[in-house]
Amino acid sequence: MNDLTTTAAMNLREREFKIVGTRPPRPDGVDKVTGRARFGADLFLPNMLVGKVLRSPHAHARIKSIDASKALALPGVKAIVTCADFGDLPSEFIPAGEMMVNYRDMTRNIMAREKALYVGHAVAAVAATTDAIAAQALALIKVDYEVLPHVIDVEAAMAPGAPLLHENMYTIGVEPKPAQPSNVAKRVEFALGDIAAGFAKADVVIEREFNTAPVHQGYIEPHACLASVSEDGQAELWCTTQGQFIVRSFCAKLLGMEHAKLRVTATEIGGGFGGKTVVYLEPLALALSRKCKQPVKMTMTRAEVFEATGPTSGAKVWVKIGATREGKITAADALLKYQAGAFQGSPVGPGAMCAFAPYDLENVRVIGFDVVSNRPKVAAYRAPGAPISEYAVESVIDELAKKLNIDPIELRLKNAAKEGTKAAYGPKFGPVGLVQTLEAARAHAHYQAPLKANQGRGVASGFWFNIGGETCATLNLAEDGSVTLIAGTPDIGGPRASLAMMGAEALGIPYDKVRPSIGDTSSLGFTFLTGGSRVTFSSGMAVIEAARNMIAQLRERAAKLWELPLDQVIWEGGCARSASGSAGGEKKMTLAELAAAAGKTGGPIVANAAINAQGAGPGFATHVVDVEVDRETGAVKILRYTAIQDAGKAVHPAYVEGQMHGGAVQGIGWALNEEYIYNAKGQLENAGFLDYRTPVASDVPMIDTVIVEVPNPRHPYGVRGVGETPIVPPMAAIANAVANALGLRMTQLPMSPPRVLEAIERAAG
Amino acid sequence: MNDLTTTAAMNLREREFKIVGTRPPRPDGVDKVTGRARFGADLFLPNMLVGKVLRSPHAHARIKSIDASKALALPGVKAIVTCADFGDLPSEFIPAGEMMVNYRDMTRNIMAREKALYVGHAVAAVAATTDAIAAQALALIKVDYEVLPHVIDVEAAMAPGAPLLHENMYTIGVEPKPAQPSNVAKRVEFALGDIAAGFAKADVVIEREFNTAPVHQGYIEPHACLASVSEDGQAELWCTTQGQFIVRSFCAKLLGMEHAKLRVTATEIGGGFGGKTVVYLEPLALALSRKCKQPVKMTMTRAEVFEATGPTSGAKVWVKIGATREGKITAADALLKYQAGAFQGSPVGPGAMCAFAPYDLENVRVIGFDVVSNRPKVAAYRAPGAPISEYAVESVIDELAKKLNIDPIELRLKNAAKEGTKAAYGPKFGPVGLVQTLEAARAHAHYQAPLKANQGRGVASGFWFNIGGETCATLNLAEDGSVTLIAGTPDIGGPRASLAMMGAEALGIPYDKVRPSIGDTSSLGFTFLTGGSRVTFSSGMAVIEAARNMIAQLRERAAKLWELPLDQVIWEGGCARSASGSAGGEKKMTLAELAAAAGKTGGPIVANAAINAQGAGPGFATHVVDVEVDRETGAVKILRYTAIQDAGKAVHPAYVEGQMHGGAVQGIGWALNEEYIYNAKGQLENAGFLDYRTPVASDVPMIDTVIVEVPNPRHPYGVRGVGETPIVPPMAAIANAVANALGLRMTQLPMSPPRVLEAIERAAG
Repeated sequence: MNDLTTTAAMNLREREFKIVGTRPPRPDGVDKVTGRARFGADLFLPNMLVGKVLRSPHAHARIKSIDASKALALPGVKAIVTCADFGDLPSEFIPAGEMMVNYRDMTRNIMAREKALYVGHAVAAVAATTDAIAAQALALIKVDYEVLPHVIDVEAAMAPGAPLLHENMYTIGVEPKPAQPSNVAKRVEFALGDIAAGFAKADVVIEREFNTAPVHQGYIEPHACLASVSEDGQAELWCTTQGQFIVRSFCAKLLGMEHAKLRVTATEIGGGFGGKTVVYLEPLALALSRKCKQPVKMTMTRAEVFEATGPTSGAKVWVKIGATREGKITAADALLKYQAGAFQGSPVGPGAMCAFAPYDLENVRVIGFDVVSNRPKVAAYRAPGAPISEYAVESVIDELAKKLNIDPIELRLKNAAKEGTKAAYGPKFGPVGLVQTLEAARAHAHYQAPLKANQGRGVASGFWFNIGGETCATLNLAEDGSVTLIAGTPDIGGPRASLAMMGAEALGIPYDKVRPSIGDTSSLGFTFLTGGSRVTFSSGMAVIEAARNMIAQLRERAAKLWELPLDQVIWEGGCARSASGSAGGEKKMTLAELAAAAGKTGGPIVANAAINAQGAGPGFATHVVDVEVDRETGAVKILRYTAIQDAGKAVHPAYVEGQMHGGAVQGIGWALNEEYIYNAKGQLENAGFLDYRTPVASDVPMIDTVIVEVPNPRHPYGVRGVGETPIVPPMAAIANAVANALGLRMTQLPMSPPRVLEAIERAAG
Repeated sequence: MNDLTTTAAMNLREREFKIVGTRPPRPDGVDKVTGRARFGADLFLPNMLVGKVLRSPHAHARIKSIDASKALALPGVKAIVTCADFGDLPSEFIPAGEMMVNYRDMTRNIMAREKALYVGHAVAAVAATTDAIAAQALALIKVDYEVLPHVIDVEAAMAPGAPLLHENMYTIGVEPKPAQPSNVAKRVEFALGDIAAGFAKADVVIEREFNTAPVHQGYIEPHACLASVSEDGQAELWCTTQGQFIVRSFCAKLLGMEHAKLRVTATEIGGGFGGKTVVYLEPLALALSRKCKQPVKMTMTRAEVFEATGPTSGAKVWVKIGATREGKITAADALLKYQAGAFQGSPVGPGAMCAFAPYDLENVRVIGFDVVSNRPKVAAYRAPGAPISEYAVESVIDELAKKLNIDPIELRLKNAAKEGTKAAYGPKFGPVGLVQTLEAARAHAHYQAPLKANQGRGVASGFWFNIGGETCATLNLAEDGSVTLIAGTPDIGGPRASLAMMGAEALGIPYDKVRPSIGDTSSLGFTFLTGGSRVTFSSGMAVIEAARNMIAQLRERAAKLWELPLDQVIWEGGCARSASGSAGGEKKMTLAELAAAAGKTGGPIVANAAINAQGAGPGFATHVVDVEVDRETGAVKILRYTAIQDAGKAVHPAYVEGQMHGGAVQGIGWALNEEYIYNAKGQLENAGFLDYRTPVASDVPMIDTVIVEVPNPRHPYGVRGVGETPIVPPMAAIANAVANALGLRMTQLPMSPPRVLEAIERAAG
């Protein structure tokens, strides 16, 4: 267990870092650039079968029957599973780490039960000896569908008389309980003060409605896994995931297995961004392998990734903000309608939490709706929900600045959240760095650089609360004084390096003496996933705690060897030393010497920590972007981009910058090009990277970064999560830049060339 | 660290077992019988190369030069290594766990340096894209040898003027230091009392000389490994071994690597019996992979296993025992000359320790010599050294019984070691079970059964001291209350099952709630190998300590939830309960409930133990065997076999019986058939299972077993090691039976048909 008071106190004594803040090479770097690293699809077992999924061609259809007999008779077909191979589960929310999971929905999302709810919804899965036989088998499975009317758009889904996806779903969070089922799963509200009174005090009020398209995380590596279930029910699963423990929780529940009987190994992962915090193929591969007792490997095509895995919500967001002439915001109101996809669970909750969080407001309200429609269920995508609501808010703030003739950074500074600010969603902030990012933006050369015709500059801030949660780490001291470190959080953004750095820093030894690895679910205790911007914070906290635990043991061993009381042995610079004035004169032993003596001083030296990390420091960022709009084509070119963010303490600054680069680039895609295009049948028409346009290198400039460090007092090294925040500001920053370039406000994402052209033409009259 | 006082005290409170002593299925059983388990040769990596070893055709030869240029030029050859790829290391003894290792010798044994010292000695190794190319490359390597005179036999090697294997080797343990180098590496001596005075009191003295042949462990799975070294020096190694941590220590030292940079995984293992406690291919595969940066897989053929890996010593043993008319032994003396193979390190030390250990003797002396000759270096083989010396001693005891006309069990009982006996090698025994095994043997129906002509019955006892040592174990509590257990001792005789049983017993939960696995070197702290009969004892002790640590945490969590002082929460039957009379009435939470609440009570629940296990209880056995000798062919048939052994506490009795069966069968082979046959050139002529005859099913009867339980007070559950002891009595028991059948004493092993025939014919005239 983690003593945060102690942790915070120790914080002050460790401000002088030797390793934290440097930029050493990553331990997994060579393996990744040489192709040696094993990703989800890189695993092979003897007798391995190929698993493939039969997917619904209909956006909404009742499944009347499934006849797999012909497929099963095909030589080489070893197993077929349908929903009949999974027990039904009640609709209740069960915790899995920091998540609340509805297994009734999850079992239906991984395998359609009564109905297929989107094109691409899994209906059956086949395991066969070859890819070709598996494909042939899929074609032989006869599914009798009753096609139903479908609904794609969020507002159409909310409208009375819309086709209902779930006949028993009644909106949660409204009083009285609705008499009729609907596609609205949930209503959330966060409020502070008196919203009407606040608007009454305003000199200026701006009110706007925005639309955002669903966008996919766009990870380069499609979902892939390999499952092997033995006759006695013990199972192994390798998969590309952000959380091997979450996968174990999910699959154990979906398959009715005991957790300890399922060993899940996270392979190397080619991107996740939130999209690999859920299961798709994993329970199917396990169910297939359980049936035929051979290993089953499954991989998705890119089209399957687009059609059947979660993007983030598209949404409609209404925002209204009032302010005094001097620029003091008096009231802020927002209404969020987020697509959940086929099952409840859009990120409207965090979207509502974050919407106005960058501001210190007396009167504020956010209402949100979680709305199902016939699309793949959404999944987390970097700062889930926040980019959507904050895009709308930061667009209105920009308009407000224009209307008040106040510099947009100045307006933000007048209202910025700071230490002591009470956020609408509950907490009172400790030290936070929004003001520092705004001041750094104002002071940056970029903000003063001249612009030409058709060019515009935009600025926007962003917020993400960051999370902690259950986390384990282990340090094992080898006989030569080198150390193996095990963490449970898959390495996406470089935690092998940053955790090894923190471990080495805490122990006082060189970085390269610590070899980090990511353990499977048998190797350490439950560890929540890589996401929420929690890894460097929580796994770092666990590693530092384990290191301090190891130092305590090392001091004990030295005290034993020197026959000194424990309090006369100190740890300094990677060595045990006798305190000055202690009996027997000055003594010193290095970590390596103590390691060599471990056997005779009591046995191997191992230290671990199992914590529920609290005190994740909120993250703020401010981005500045210059664009140029081609008035003939409607194309928006990003000319210059500067991202400024508070990292608390940047453990490995290059990886913090990498997160800032990545967030900005994904935000550019979200702002300008990415969207899902559905036809009238509810089929996705651009399920591939040729037609779903993510930014390529030529679309983005070199991105400048400025790291601000306002230490998080609740982490021993001051760390805040940095992965989510940088995707929050780009859409508003770019929309504000486009507005400045064109002199007109666009309220729909993406601002793709046809839409920009249309807006220009509409404005022209 | 392990508090043995506490452990011993707790022992008494846990005598009522629910799981320990039962016979549940082994967790690895299904995988092993279905072929799913991955053994040393079952691993594959992309771009994997095949490694092969060029071996010396000469028993003794100076290596003048090695020219690999032609081989290296062969397309498909990626790397070649010779001794030049390994740094030379000084001749000093360095601890690796409980072993003392001479790396000067080890680096020369894995790759010949100045000289090739036996036929089959590795001289170079090649990595190539295919097996055929690797074989072709070996043929292209030109080694210029200067052939030297060689010596195979131990006494020939000790003789003045014998060819010297190591020009700088001077016998250790003799005063003054010898002026001349010799093939005698070491002299050891253990003694108690006054040997001459003891013999002076004897009424009867028997003195005999015995010869034993070297015998191979005969594990079914040949050595195999897969190594992958990255450009930045990080390495992974999978291999069939009895100790992944020892392999890491050895390879790190041989290759000059940091321990933490080398991750070693023990694959499933198809037998070891001591023979997989050393490295052969592993450092070669790592060196090859380090050179070409591709994974390299190496496997031995059976011929390579025989020619280049360690059997146990052949030996010459002289024994003299004197006793009074009443059967009280007054003095015992022995001289052991053990073959070490090409490098020092025969098991003459433990052979000397064990020789007379079954007896409570006032006057005793054992002198032993460790002698090198041009054979593969010996490796550990079950109770290393003890079967050889005890074979000789137990043969003489039998002859003494005959001469004194005392029943051989009765004679042993008169002199048996018991609690308080001071052994010649040092310790005073605590509670030991020799008397109990002798009494059980005497009471067994087998001992009274009638015999026919040409049949004989033999009895012999055996001793092994057993060991403990550095050991780690981890228990991780999953969210549903199931538990993963990690141990560091490869599973040969069933520790997955026995450790899970002890963990479940200590936690008070069902056996199948604990899923055990064997961790790699990154997963836990240094753990000494599977051997010495230490696993059930030491890893069991660590698991029990970890479980008690987990219970302490579980009580704390419950106390927190119930707002009770810790001392009012007890752990009983897998549940936390409020102590009777505690505030708030009776409360109870199961392990699963506490697991589900772990997040909110402080985080995941993980417990580990890292101990240097002390207090291994010595193991005694008595075997009874009936044989029939075919006087025409000399064939000895084993008619009936009963093995009786003190297990302290048999955690999983079926596996204890398995050890007893296995030891008896290996002893039958050693007694009757197994031997190394060298020709005049020093070449092994029977390097295969067709010509090196281990027992097959038709050679052995069903073996009866009787487990005696004299609890080891220094283990919480009373456990003693059981793996080594059962190979000690068979050779003497069978020799004694043959002597009884034939009326003549054979003093050479194996008692193969030609030798028995020769003995019969010699006796006849």
